Amino acid sequence: MSHDKSSLLNKTVEHLDLTGLKGCAALVKAMGDTAFQARNLSRATDIYEMMLKDKDCMIILCLAGSLVSAGMKKIIVDMIENNMIDAIVSTGANIVDQDFFEGLGFRHYQANPYAVDDNKLQEMMIDRIYDTYIDEENLRDCDHTIFEIANKLTPRAYSSREFIQIMGAYLMKHGKNKNSIVRAAYEKNLPIFVPAFSDCSAGFGLVLHQVKNPEKHLAIDSVKDFRELTELKIGIKDSGLLMLGGGVPKNFAQDIVVAAELLDHDAAMHKYAVQITVADERDGALSGSTLREACSWGKVSTTFEQMVFAEATLAFPLLAAAAFENGAAKQRSAKHLSKQFPSLMEEEAKM
Amino acid sequence: MSHDKSSLLNKTVEHLDLTGLKGCAALVKAMGDTAFQARNLSRATDIYEMMLKDKDCMIILCLAGSLVSAGMKKIIVDMIENNMIDAIVSTGANIVDQDFFEGLGFRHYQANPYAVDDNKLQEMMIDRIYDTYIDEENLRDCDHTIFEIANKLTPRAYSSREFIQIMGAYLMKHGKNKNSIVRAAYEKNLPIFVPAFSDCSAGFGLVLHQVKNPEKHLAIDSVKDFRELTELKIGIKDSGLLMLGGGVPKNFAQDIVVAAELLDHDAAMHKYAVQITVADERDGALSGSTLREACSWGKVSTTFEQMVFAEATLAFPLLAAAAFENGAAKQRSAKHLSKQFPSLMEEEAKM
Amino acid sequence: MSHDKSSLLNKTVEHLDLTGLKGCAALVKAMGDTAFQARNLSRATDIYEMMLKDKDCMIILCLAGSLVSAGMKKIIVDMIENNMIDAIVSTGANIVDQDFFEGLGFRHYQANPYAVDDNKLQEMMIDRIYDTYIDEENLRDCDHTIFEIANKLTPRAYSSREFIQIMGAYLMKHGKNKNSIVRAAYEKNLPIFVPAFSDCSAGFGLVLHQVKNPEKHLAIDSVKDFRELTELKIGIKDSGLLMLGGGVPKNFAQDIVVAAELLDHDAAMHKYAVQITVADERDGALSGSTLREACSWGKVSTTFEQMVFAEATLAFPLLAAAAFENGAAKQRSAKHLSKQFPSLMEEEAKM
Amino acid sequence: MSHDKSSLLNKTVEHLDLTGLKGCAALVKAMGDTAFQARNLSRATDIYEMMLKDKDCMIILCLAGSLVSAGMKKIIVDMIENNMIDAIVSTGANIVDQDFFEGLGFRHYQANPYAVDDNKLQEMMIDRIYDTYIDEENLRDCDHTIFEIANKLTPRAYSSREFIQIMGAYLMKHGKNKNSIVRAAYEKNLPIFVPAFSDCSAGFGLVLHQVKNPEKHLAIDSVKDFRELTELKIGIKDSGLLMLGGGVPKNFAQDIVVAAELLDHDAAMHKYAVQITVADERDGALSGSTLREACSWGKVSTTFEQMVFAEATLAFPLLAAAAFENGAAKQRSAKHLSKQFPSLMEEEAKM
Repeated sequence: MSHDKSSLLNKTVEHLDLTGLKGCAALVKAMGDTAFQARNLSRATDIYEMMLKDKDCMIILCLAGSLVSAGMKKIIVDMIENNMIDAIVSTGANIVDQDFFEGLGFRHYQANPYAVDDNKLQEMMIDRIYDTYIDEENLRDCDHTIFEIANKLTPRAYSSREFIQIMGAYLMKHGKNKNSIVRAAYEKNLPIFVPAFSDCSAGFGLVLHQVKNPEKHLAIDSVKDFRELTELKIGIKDSGLLMLGGGVPKNFAQDIVVAAELLDHDAAMHKYAVQITVADERDGALSGSTLREACSWGKVSTTFEQMVFAEATLAFPLLAAAAFENGAAKQRSAKHLSKQFPSLMEEEAKM
Repeated sequence: MSHDKSSLLNKTVEHLDLTGLKGCAALVKAMGDTAFQARNLSRATDIYEMMLKDKDCMIILCLAGSLVSAGMKKIIVDMIENNMIDAIVSTGANIVDQDFFEGLGFRHYQANPYAVDDNKLQEMMIDRIYDTYIDEENLRDCDHTIFEIANKLTPRAYSSREFIQIMGAYLMKHGKNKNSIVRAAYEKNLPIFVPAFSDCSAGFGLVLHQVKNPEKHLAIDSVKDFRELTELKIGIKDSGLLMLGGGVPKNFAQDIVVAAELLDHDAAMHKYAVQITVADERDGALSGSTLREACSWGKVSTTFEQMVFAEATLAFPLLAAAAFENGAAKQRSAKHLSKQFPSLMEEEAKM
Repeated sequence: MSHDKSSLLNKTVEHLDLTGLKGCAALVKAMGDTAFQARNLSRATDIYEMMLKDKDCMIILCLAGSLVSAGMKKIIVDMIENNMIDAIVSTGANIVDQDFFEGLGFRHYQANPYAVDDNKLQEMMIDRIYDTYIDEENLRDCDHTIFEIANKLTPRAYSSREFIQIMGAYLMKHGKNKNSIVRAAYEKNLPIFVPAFSDCSAGFGLVLHQVKNPEKHLAIDSVKDFRELTELKIGIKDSGLLMLGGGVPKNFAQDIVVAAELLDHDAAMHKYAVQITVADERDGALSGSTLREACSWGKVSTTFEQMVFAEATLAFPLLAAAAFENGAAKQRSAKHLSKQFPSLMEEEAKM
Repeated sequence: MSHDKSSLLNKTVEHLDLTGLKGCAALVKAMGDTAFQARNLSRATDIYEMMLKDKDCMIILCLAGSLVSAGMKKIIVDMIENNMIDAIVSTGANIVDQDFFEGLGFRHYQANPYAVDDNKLQEMMIDRIYDTYIDEENLRDCDHTIFEIANKLTPRAYSSREFIQIMGAYLMKHGKNKNSIVRAAYEKNLPIFVPAFSDCSAGFGLVLHQVKNPEKHLAIDSVKDFRELTELKIGIKDSGLLMLGGGVPKNFAQDIVVAAELLDHDAAMHKYAVQITVADERDGALSGSTLREACSWGKVSTTFEQMVFAEATLAFPLLAAAAFENGAAKQRSAKHLSKQFPSLMEEEAKM
């Protein structure tokens, strides 16, 4: 069977739209009286709804894994627009390669993971994520847009949060798809942190920027990210974590409790914590470490914590659908946390 | 903290009731355009609905893992009553220790897996399945009921299917909970096979029966089980497998294609096959082996097969809820497959 | 139990030093001062060596997964010949489709799991187990040999243990490869139990036997298996389990403690228990349930139990190599447990 | 490619023979004729030895997961000292919280993961990593050392590689344990990159540094890391990856091929790649994505790639022991790659 690029890139991934969906809340509630991961998911949903009703609580959404390419984007956008999260900590792939990428008008495509040899895909410039395809030429456009954004900015040290905010301003002017996390976050002054910002499409654009501007270029200061997120923690009474996957975002968001303490602030442990992950504790790695273990480190309180051992595309939509349907966020308003930081208006205006 | 038995056994597991639930079908359908296990689940649901609409297809439900204790029982009972499955192949625990046990009026209880030391539980005669408790005294009643049933029967070789059918007759007269797979199957003449029948509560009762009746006792002939299920396959055009977990039921149900061929019948491979499992192929074991691999063995056709890598308590209710809501079985009638075998009326009458 | 900090921080992690390392036993020993599964494997090996030095202990090896086709056969044969195990409980595939099959002179072949489409393999009559191939024509010879063995036997109810012992006698006369578990067990009077005996190549041969001999045929009575293994437990002071994989063998071997108690014998819980498995406890299934959980059921003592979460082909050779090298079985003699059951000489003579 | 049956069935599985086995190298070699992860490990070891013999190949060791606390440190130190790796990309925990920490004279402790409640541990300031304890007071000393190092440095943008090199200089003067990755790397001019450098103990010290020095402080520029590693790739003919775990290090090290191409250099894909991980591809996340998938992205050649699905503490020592024993690196000399970058002598002298 021969394959050509356009026949392989012909069925787009469509983002799950949970608005208006009714019925899942009843299922998730009933799961609370069953067992295993169904019961865990139900309890995790309860804890997330507790966060939503706790007005003094900053909710941080942590993202690892390929969630945007997998059709989870609109759920997150809806959460932002309905004031159901207050900050995001993510891997770069979700925010830059996938969300910003789609904001520029590009798409992800459904694939059969067994159908085409990866060497063939490489020749056709098609990148594969398990059962999803990406047109690498589009991705290079995305890299290049980052390069151009960087070139316009005052050469200084930026946090990833600052850079992503400016990317939001870029999308407001030049974006071709309003359904974007980066754009929605920009509009809601919701900060997005990517602690390993070079480890994605942004890295390519920024390396090119530094190489082409050897004397005067910007830097992405990951310490500044950590400092900013810690400041947000210091400025609020309570906090809760809604974590999809583990990795750097999980560790980074947990660590701000300890950082706040180190800065002589009497910060409370994260009061609520939920993690949806396929990882488990048996290899000792952070991604699958239990939230109980995080308590020994003084990061997470054990009272309202729940691990859900499940693949995110199955468990997250159920949790989110129940939370939407139950309207737990109705009394909640946007926290506009980015406004606590110095204005970026001047840089944004250059986009 | 001290614990007493009654305080630990105070919150029952409640079985998920999907009847009347609306909304999940839309979610599952939309998942078909996303990725990873959400897309796999959506396709698996489509394939199951194809089976339901294919009137000449025998649908075999395979059960491994602790599904009944985990609140999945009523879904299966509803499937039986709505003609959505035609035969069951299961581990003994689901059918005897859990379903027949509940049919006798006993219950499972919700537990916190970390709360009480297992040595303490053992002293209190509480058995634990991850986050679920069982009163072992009830379980011994269940063992003893099997013993009494066996004592009443003509001493000969029975298939597990025959014995379970007689258990169904027992529940019709003495059961205390109508919501039972064994009972519903009895009423619908739906055969249930447990290929490793001694490996559960039934084994305890039957060993006691043999020891107390050294000269004249019944036997459970697992060859007869295999023969009977193969005969069902030979007698029908097509077949489909809906598998929860792997283990012996998966292998046993797949093997009947090869057995039919060995008996010189021109049996088609299973036309449809869906498996929900957490196992994966990397250890080479059957439970996680792909359905493609099963094709090399001549057991399963690859056209309509789908693995869903997920914990069953999360994925199975979604698949089932969608199938119920979509009414794919509406044109389907009960196959009453047990009627193909010699009558057990005489033995049933002894209960 | 109260804890103070210094008593908790008193055993340092020691870094593995591979320089000058002499042999696998030294490696496994050094792993005992590391962490995660390396430490677990080291402790499991210690526990296995304790079993070997405990003369009053019956060691039961439990086998699930495709271990023989994966090259683990000779380790098990050597364990039998060096009196390092006393009984085996297994899935049918390991004993019949793989070991007896190789005893007949057939082989397994290395495969690249991605190289050939499974539909193509099916056309060529090649069966695949992940990265291994089998010639299905050989497998049919194996099925047929079982058929012929069954035809020669007195038609009565046999335990799988009895039938496998007769298969051992068959291999003694007609076998073409001395390196066989079934044959070595025969020579050492070591009983092998396959609780789901129809669920393998034996099932095919036996179904054919029953169909061709509708009036007079043998049966495989799985209750008898359970009874026999329980009798062995009753007849000995202590017992230990060495489990590769989970499934029916794990449950079956654990259950004999409860069965012995049911028969009014004061049987001790299994004193030692080691399991190597990739499964975990999060889905509530038996295969990955912890040995602590088994304690709540009164099956396994928690003092000397160890789970090793690892794929068997990596972990089992290390454990076995260390046990061989350390010579922990030197003082041990064969228990010849099959001699406790009625003689099968008459049937064996028919082979 | 056409296949015939005899060409597919031409390489038999050989059973592991542990009798008379001499050393780990012989075991790993013999595993190459078995199946599943044992065979995968054997092939991975072969590929690693090919890298070692390929003089024009830069070997990058990628570390994710808690490897140093788990007793794997000395293996890595020995690899550095024997010229068996040329660069390291790691998570921060391994390099700062664990290795630099031990270099300061602190230790990790063995723990029973079930023995003490995590709330109790938190009160005692004991941090837990699965079955390992850390004295949090020691960890704060470590944080503070980073703070002091940062305070002494010229306030500019550093790559993590630069900062870690300076930490090496610090250990040369003030360290209390010579067995250190950071120190050994310093002595061999071997660059260590930590792309998410704030996401560990370093982050705490550096945040404090920035807060205490609001006007003049250093930054950690993750773009510079990416640029430096890409320059190393550009400067050498071939490269190979030896990856323990996934996460940011895996992605970061793979991405430099694409970055080099973006900078208009004709960089070859990584010629060799080996990953040991427990993650799998089913959730679509990068950590478990196959190296074949990486080929579609143009990052890794498929000719010499091997995934080993195993927990690192079991599989890595075997691979390393075989490589040591076989002496594949004997002809290899240190590449001193850090010397390609501007000297840090002035900053190092301040320690």
